[in-house]
Amino acid sequence: MGQEDVIRLDPWGVSSIKDYRRLMEEFGIQPIESAPLKELPQLHRLIRRGFIFGHRDLNLIIKAVKEGREYAVMTGIKPSGDYHLGTKVTAEEFIYFTNLSSKAMGFFAIADLEAYADNKIPLEKSREIAISNLMDLLALGLDPKRVYVYRQSEEMNVLKLAFIFSRAVTYNMMEAIYGDKPFGLYYSALVQAGDILLPQLPEHGGPKPTLVPVGADQDPHIRLTRDIARKYREDFGFILPAAVYHKLIRDLTGSMKMSKRNPMGILYLTDSLESARKKIFSAFTGGRATAEEQKKLGGTPEVCTIFVELLSMHFLEDDKKLKEWYWDCKTGRILCGECKAKAWEIISRWLSEHQRKREQMRDVAVKLLEEHTLT
Amino acid sequence: MGQEDVIRLDPWGVSSIKDYRRLMEEFGIQPIESAPLKELPQLHRLIRRGFIFGHRDLNLIIKAVKEGREYAVMTGIKPSGDYHLGTKVTAEEFIYFTNLSSKAMGFFAIADLEAYADNKIPLEKSREIAISNLMDLLALGLDPKRVYVYRQSEEMNVLKLAFIFSRAVTYNMMEAIYGDKPFGLYYSALVQAGDILLPQLPEHGGPKPTLVPVGADQDPHIRLTRDIARKYREDFGFILPAAVYHKLIRDLTGSMKMSKRNPMGILYLTDSLESARKKIFSAFTGGRATAEEQKKLGGTPEVCTIFVELLSMHFLEDDKKLKEWYWDCKTGRILCGECKAKAWEIISRWLSEHQRKREQMRDVAVKLLEEHTLT
Repeated sequence: MGQEDVIRLDPWGVSSIKDYRRLMEEFGIQPIESAPLKELPQLHRLIRRGFIFGHRDLNLIIKAVKEGREYAVMTGIKPSGDYHLGTKVTAEEFIYFTNLSSKAMGFFAIADLEAYADNKIPLEKSREIAISNLMDLLALGLDPKRVYVYRQSEEMNVLKLAFIFSRAVTYNMMEAIYGDKPFGLYYSALVQAGDILLPQLPEHGGPKPTLVPVGADQDPHIRLTRDIARKYREDFGFILPAAVYHKLIRDLTGSMKMSKRNPMGILYLTDSLESARKKIFSAFTGGRATAEEQKKLGGTPEVCTIFVELLSMHFLEDDKKLKEWYWDCKTGRILCGECKAKAWEIISRWLSEHQRKREQMRDVAVKLLEEHTLT
Repeated sequence: MGQEDVIRLDPWGVSSIKDYRRLMEEFGIQPIESAPLKELPQLHRLIRRGFIFGHRDLNLIIKAVKEGREYAVMTGIKPSGDYHLGTKVTAEEFIYFTNLSSKAMGFFAIADLEAYADNKIPLEKSREIAISNLMDLLALGLDPKRVYVYRQSEEMNVLKLAFIFSRAVTYNMMEAIYGDKPFGLYYSALVQAGDILLPQLPEHGGPKPTLVPVGADQDPHIRLTRDIARKYREDFGFILPAAVYHKLIRDLTGSMKMSKRNPMGILYLTDSLESARKKIFSAFTGGRATAEEQKKLGGTPEVCTIFVELLSMHFLEDDKKLKEWYWDCKTGRILCGECKAKAWEIISRWLSEHQRKREQMRDVAVKLLEEHTLT
């Protein structure tokens, strides 16, 4: 296999994955269709529309849902800023899988130590960001009684696990999984393994299936953690964590590199309507060079961020309407200006409503951060 | 410099250091005489007799003693067994330097996570061992009101520091300091840096001179921690930790390798008198092949474990008597049998007395472990 044929996944960098099928074959990720999805009470739009493309051991979670047995769903954030369309994907998956059963418990890690170590973000600042993030999660449907929220700087058990796990890895192993990275990042990876396995400690009810929804680029963490869970199975009784994988999202300029240096590309859930409007009206589309041409040949919704990232992925729930939208574009019945105006109507309504809801969640978010869970 | 000329220090292995002078030159350790020792109220036998041979920044501690300003003395153990003559050296240094001033605070780390990760010693077992160790420390003169005792498994601040410090090191740096070691040991080194810098956190009164008494083989930890303290000086206000260095102790068979596989070589402070007697009567001496020869030529106290390790290092406080003992041997006036019997009289008295005292300390030790310090 030539150098350029190697699929490189870098959870800390920018991964560009064109061929998800090959990725799955190479790393042993199962296609999402291989899981018994029909046994789920409802399917999330991200699954229906193929944005969630793969999984590991999702069967275990579906089985737990069906049999009414306990399971955990785990995610986390490095508190570096407000929620945007990229982080919203994982947030929605987290909430969806937690809400599937009354026996599910969500675990939400706030990586404030990592934010401090890497970005010198003071813990107090992380706390503020985390409150904002929790407000979004709650507005998106997170049940504050079915989640355990913790900050790395307070959760001794995670750092204890990372300490123990440090004995189970070698440089060769870490390099094989992550490539040649600084010592501190390898160490962070062990802390993440601690986060993922925390729900299985006796303090949280012992071994249980645990699902981690991640972007495709985060698979190295899943592989490492599964490897560690295997090594400590005898000591802790760990069940190998399950995962679902979503495709990487482009920013609104159509770039795979979602960067704060390109703020017009990122739509934050906290953006003012004015700012959001500007971003959407300057978003990258699948339009033609001229209106004439587009009327004749039709647009290319497959590459359009309005169609793919905004409507399909996030804002248009109705599958039938989405299909109509697709064909209106494809056949040239609608041009980009009109399309954006129509999309903006939907998105602005969603944003206003979300922002109204999230403001009402401030007190609950603060309480959740302080008390880990609400009873 | 040829391969065999390189001084190798390995805090986790067996170091054999023949030339302490060269060691000091190579790594920048100052000779102990360079510190203003005369300003100390009294000199410990380990200093008077040259077992403590070097230091870094001891001046800062002596200055704090003299000026009545706060300083910390830091040490720790990996709870793997009872105190013996080797661990007693560090214990005595710890107590001596803490007792020099009412402004001093001792910090005693119990590395129970490390014992678990490396030796699968359960935390509960570590707790028992730590209690036994604390009983010895208290019997040796540790003031329970001037020490902060903590277990790694409970001290979040140390693991937080290790997390942060993981960003400040590179493999090259770790390899240059420690040689090529497993990932887990490099990580342990960062945790130790956290232990050493813990006394300077705001929770413990902020930056202050901190002394770490160590065996010569532990200098890599000191160098790493000073390097890290330098890098985080701006963030935390750290003062570079000071250290005193003692020579490595042989076991009673005369071997540098103190190993549990050679139990006759290690005198535990908890040994029964019968067991201690056996070990001492079979200890390696500087005697000649025959009594005749020894009477004529005299013994070699310089290589005798009874004279060096037992009497000089540990059990004969009186310098004048020690000198007489030396000459009695050197001139052949006393043979090994008689010497051992005389030594045993002193040692058995010390041991009985120590064991009586340590038993009285059990309750205080338990309380100290639970409450960190007694007020």
